[in-house]
Amino acid sequence: MPAKRQPIEYSEASAQVRAVYDDIMATRQTDWINDFWKVLAHDPPTLRRIWSNIKEVMGPGSLDPLTKELLYVAVSASNGCQYCIASHGAAARNKGMSEQQYSELLAIVGLANETNRLVTALGVDVDARFL
Amino acid sequence: MPAKRQPIEYSEASAQVRAVYDDIMATRQTDWINDFWKVLAHDPPTLRRIWSNIKEVMGPGSLDPLTKELLYVAVSASNGCQYCIASHGAAARNKGMSEQQYSELLAIVGLANETNRLVTALGVDVDARFL
Amino acid sequence: MPAKRQPIEYSEASAQVRAVYDDIMATRQTDWINDFWKVLAHDPPTLRRIWSNIKEVMGPGSLDPLTKELLYVAVSASNGCQYCIASHGAAARNKGMSEQQYSELLAIVGLANETNRLVTALGVDVDARFL
Amino acid sequence: MPAKRQPIEYSEASAQVRAVYDDIMATRQTDWINDFWKVLAHDPPTLRRIWSNIKEVMGPGSLDPLTKELLYVAVSASNGCQYCIASHGAAARNKGMSEQQYSELLAIVGLANETNRLVTALGVDVDARFL
Amino acid sequence: MPAKRQPIEYSEASAQVRAVYDDIMATRQTDWINDFWKVLAHDPPTLRRIWSNIKEVMGPGSLDPLTKELLYVAVSASNGCQYCIASHGAAARNKGMSEQQYSELLAIVGLANETNRLVTALGVDVDARFL
Amino acid sequence: MPAKRQPIEYSEASAQVRAVYDDIMATRQTDWINDFWKVLAHDPPTLRRIWSNIKEVMGPGSLDPLTKELLYVAVSASNGCQYCIASHGAAARNKGMSEQQYSELLAIVGLANETNRLVTALGVDVDARFL
Repeated sequence: MPAKRQPIEYSEASAQVRAVYDDIMATRQTDWINDFWKVLAHDPPTLRRIWSNIKEVMGPGSLDPLTKELLYVAVSASNGCQYCIASHGAAARNKGMSEQQYSELLAIVGLANETNRLVTALGVDVDARFL
Repeated sequence: MPAKRQPIEYSEASAQVRAVYDDIMATRQTDWINDFWKVLAHDPPTLRRIWSNIKEVMGPGSLDPLTKELLYVAVSASNGCQYCIASHGAAARNKGMSEQQYSELLAIVGLANETNRLVTALGVDVDARFL
Repeated sequence: MPAKRQPIEYSEASAQVRAVYDDIMATRQTDWINDFWKVLAHDPPTLRRIWSNIKEVMGPGSLDPLTKELLYVAVSASNGCQYCIASHGAAARNKGMSEQQYSELLAIVGLANETNRLVTALGVDVDARFL
Repeated sequence: MPAKRQPIEYSEASAQVRAVYDDIMATRQTDWINDFWKVLAHDPPTLRRIWSNIKEVMGPGSLDPLTKELLYVAVSASNGCQYCIASHGAAARNKGMSEQQYSELLAIVGLANETNRLVTALGVDVDARFL
Repeated sequence: MPAKRQPIEYSEASAQVRAVYDDIMATRQTDWINDFWKVLAHDPPTLRRIWSNIKEVMGPGSLDPLTKELLYVAVSASNGCQYCIASHGAAARNKGMSEQQYSELLAIVGLANETNRLVTALGVDVDARFL
Repeated sequence: MPAKRQPIEYSEASAQVRAVYDDIMATRQTDWINDFWKVLAHDPPTLRRIWSNIKEVMGPGSLDPLTKELLYVAVSASNGCQYCIASHGAAARNKGMSEQQYSELLAIVGLANETNRLVTALGVDVDARFL
């Protein structure tokens, strides 16, 4: 196997992998699977496990679906994961994120990274009022 | 000066620093300043500059104030900044964040950090559909 | 010099650089040098120093050679260094890493990144029993 | 609820949480639960989900149990998570990790972080032979 | 709008954006703007804010201009931001950074990343003498 | 051995460890060793190796000694290593760093972390002029 794993298409996938692909498409109400899942498919238990986590964590809860995607995009932007920004950014746009909202999100990601370093480097103790 | 800078209280602050403290309290409608600003006050231009950035970025926009705080908390949690989690977590609770919402936010932060690494390590190319 | 340093081939290298290249090839029992070393060669003392560190740290010890490479790959995957995943991944495969083992390694890297964030964000104190 | 969540002891836990605690103790053949789980217990679905992931990923596979723990410790050390180093370090010692092996592990974590930065900063392209 | 924002050239920019471009060129005594600013221009308030921060932080102070650029390059190299290494590396070279100095800077970045992890993983307490 | 390694004092150190301690004190012209080295001493080859690296990288070169310490402090601040900020901050102060210079250094560290994230998240391609 080459060092870089290639996407496994539905037509060449095992029954175990197809079952996950089918659930992704049914849950997302689409007939398309993005390549993250197709590459993860080289390791079927991990494919199943990660999808199960995503489905549970990003499913209905007390945070609305758009806010959940915005949080995912923000963490991914902070970590510099281009693929994740692209995929969760697309999901966020599908759920209503405007370009103006995306700009504000990026501004917060940048500023939080700045103040996170300042606070940590200065070793500021947490105020008693926050405890 | 010791290696660790101590908070500068209002009573001992210069006029330049007091002006920023006053604006923070007026903007936040409170009579209290948390220690991050009091430690930053050893460098008045940075105190003024960072406050100005926070005021602008976290001020009214197309994302509502609670969502903005949630994004700030999520990035801070991803970066492991305890002070920032505590201070922006308090701000988020003041704006309505429930404990259930905070739990869901942490779950997203954790999972995004997991999938960010998997995607990057696997070197998955961004799907043409996302470009 | 352009911003991006190009590999320095053996034929154009100084005697000082060739001595390191020779030691790399002799130690690894190969006649090939990967580009990391050829780019480091623009700074001969750093080339010699880093190779000396790698040779010592990755040499015989109480951890077997495969385990050492797996650890190197895991840290590189966690840090998102594609080159290092590719080069140390190749070394690990040469020492016997199977694709199934690589899948399990990636799963651990992803999960550790998730729980590392959860533990740190929640500020869990280390249990007395661990001290 | 205070900003910092306190451990939930077995005696005060819900049936849902106790079921996870019971499974952790049975799987690990111990009568003790470390505080990470007791703090996660404020969010029972996350407690159950993370434990399920750990149980699957760290369970029997093609990598032996000690190697799996060493990888977890290495990623945690690279990320600077003291709690995770302590808890997975204890697990690794229980599975046979010697102090000499731990020293070698830390040396690899340090060196990988050094070369990861050098490779990325120099922008070295992946050698064709690695692809 | 596509997921990836394209540079906005001067000829197609709004008056608000042109004012920032003009100030960048005047401050830097050049007739050229690099693409970071042209991509930020999709969000004019952020363009203005970030430029204002850079102008203030990188302007005259008690650290000389070359040292300031070296620090910017070092942090960017540590974070693996290729664009920032290229842009601030060019600025540093314009201010006199030699290739030998750049090599020494990279060596420090690499080594600091190694010892930072060792210190943190070992949990070394700060010596009383440093406090 | 407990999970956290304690400093090994000179009086209890082996001849091999004392030789490194002696070289550190002679090189630094002091009769004091900070705890990082005393904790590393549990692994004598790593103690010797890391000291050898520090001595070489931080020794005389084309960057002056103060600039080298400033770069070390900046990377450590960006990585949030409190011990390293304290120890290399003390070294920088000994070499002449003023409190004003330290404030400017921190401002650059913070701002670089902000713009590094913005550039990476926006996926800005490196300008041809920088290549």
